[in-house]
Amino acid sequence: MKKALVFGGAGFIGSHLSAELLKDDYHVIVVDNLYTGTKANIPEGVEFLERDVTALCVADFPKVDEIYNLACPASPVHYQARPIETALTSIKGVLLSLEIARRDKAKMLHASTSEIYGDPIKHPQEEYDWGNVNTIGWRSCYDEGKRVAETLVSDYVRLYDVDARTIRIFNTYGPNMLRDDGRVISNFIVQALKGEDITIYGEGTQTRSFQYVTDLVNAVFKYMAIEKSELRRFFASVRLPIPVLNIGNPEEYTIKRLAKDVLRLIPESSSRLVFKALPSDDPKKRRPDITLAKKLLDWEPVVSLESGLKETISYFKR
Amino acid sequence: MKKALVFGGAGFIGSHLSAELLKDDYHVIVVDNLYTGTKANIPEGVEFLERDVTALCVADFPKVDEIYNLACPASPVHYQARPIETALTSIKGVLLSLEIARRDKAKMLHASTSEIYGDPIKHPQEEYDWGNVNTIGWRSCYDEGKRVAETLVSDYVRLYDVDARTIRIFNTYGPNMLRDDGRVISNFIVQALKGEDITIYGEGTQTRSFQYVTDLVNAVFKYMAIEKSELRRFFASVRLPIPVLNIGNPEEYTIKRLAKDVLRLIPESSSRLVFKALPSDDPKKRRPDITLAKKLLDWEPVVSLESGLKETISYFKR
Repeated sequence: MKKALVFGGAGFIGSHLSAELLKDDYHVIVVDNLYTGTKANIPEGVEFLERDVTALCVADFPKVDEIYNLACPASPVHYQARPIETALTSIKGVLLSLEIARRDKAKMLHASTSEIYGDPIKHPQEEYDWGNVNTIGWRSCYDEGKRVAETLVSDYVRLYDVDARTIRIFNTYGPNMLRDDGRVISNFIVQALKGEDITIYGEGTQTRSFQYVTDLVNAVFKYMAIEKSELRRFFASVRLPIPVLNIGNPEEYTIKRLAKDVLRLIPESSSRLVFKALPSDDPKKRRPDITLAKKLLDWEPVVSLESGLKETISYFKR
Repeated sequence: MKKALVFGGAGFIGSHLSAELLKDDYHVIVVDNLYTGTKANIPEGVEFLERDVTALCVADFPKVDEIYNLACPASPVHYQARPIETALTSIKGVLLSLEIARRDKAKMLHASTSEIYGDPIKHPQEEYDWGNVNTIGWRSCYDEGKRVAETLVSDYVRLYDVDARTIRIFNTYGPNMLRDDGRVISNFIVQALKGEDITIYGEGTQTRSFQYVTDLVNAVFKYMAIEKSELRRFFASVRLPIPVLNIGNPEEYTIKRLAKDVLRLIPESSSRLVFKALPSDDPKKRRPDITLAKKLLDWEPVVSLESGLKETISYFKR
């Protein structure tokens, strides 16, 4: 039986990955400090270690076949409450993953983020883009922590030939999101269900791309199925120094349209739209170029916003 | 007697700072692993601890009044040989400095770098600029390590009111540089003194700004002399969230002109100019906007390239 380690496996995306790994007959070890993860998210059948990844070392783990590094608060409301811990979770979590992957010659998935592109100058974002990120702002703990984590992955790949694969995850939604994570889809749904005002920051004309979580999980499984030598050949052929893929849904929606769709799908809601000032450092727009993922994985997002929202709304109703 | 801690005090810039602190009657404790620092650089009279900052903790240090965090290899030739250690030195060195500063309510100088601006899109660089940096390249260990270090400083300032001051040091030269650090001024001087070909990467039309080390040291002393409350007022008035200053010389020289100046100042040299291809990720151009430093410190660089080069050439001759 193959063993997989999932850092952050009680979180939104980590819990979906853990569930799929279980279906594939893996022995799954979840490590989560439950800061933003919840016990309710953890699928039955996993081995659960309630620990902070920053307090663990390689010797704490048995030999594993695969490592999924997803431990890090990802919502501004959470990471801004603990900025130093957030940066350190990114850094120490990826170092621990890399050291285990190196010891066990395991495959490793590193969850990076579209936030490494910051407030991008050109659209859509390609893997070749370097990003436009503030080092000293309120969002920096997450953005810069994730950026240097990518750097550490790259150097472990170059120096120690570690079989790490980086994905840059764009805006993702679905069941198991936290109600209070402060991100736009959960905010709108929760506000609509409670009959509260739906808050739009700015004029609502800023666009976002929204990926349903099962599309992301499918991409991850296809990515992890590829053998190292084939991966290396592919990324060398597209002139990227290490395996790194944008995974997201490139369809664009304005925030205002999203709010209206949510209200349409919750016809019983009595909520109204209200507009507030944009917070500082808020990324204006982000959309993935997924050319490389399509080519390498023969994958593209298939879940429409309509059906993804329906699933998510019924999750939040429960 | 005031106590000052200098991480990287056996290095090029750290050794000059240590010497000036001694002149000001400080008890100076230098911590250096001698990877790029040398014993010869350490001024007589300091307490020297030959240790790696990544292996130390707060309890290893007595109460100090000031901390200067300069521990990190800064030349591509050195940091690319140890990329992971370089990133970790940046990260752990700044965390240790911040924790000591927090414990002792000490003033702290954090040495950041113009490299956080990467390959800038606009010139000159202002403190407000976010930079254009590759996360997965060969230079990333230094650039991204330094970027996230700035982030950690910012969050310690915001959360714990630590009295940290960040400087972004632009290209600096002078005595105590390593002969083999691979940077352009030491390369050219050493090549000229040996009668070897002087290597210019690209066409030599790329410009650089060069700051003589005593100008930098003067800026640092003026910066550290300012009281915290005054600093905070100043940076709030210029709409920067934390104290951060560019320190460099904005005068621009082409690499080709520098090579010719070096040859003119070493008339006995038999060297010729040769041209090679630009390495990947090489920053094309960088020049500091020092408006804020001028205003806050009543400072500007006063040493001409001519006289700085003369001093540096006579150092390398010895």
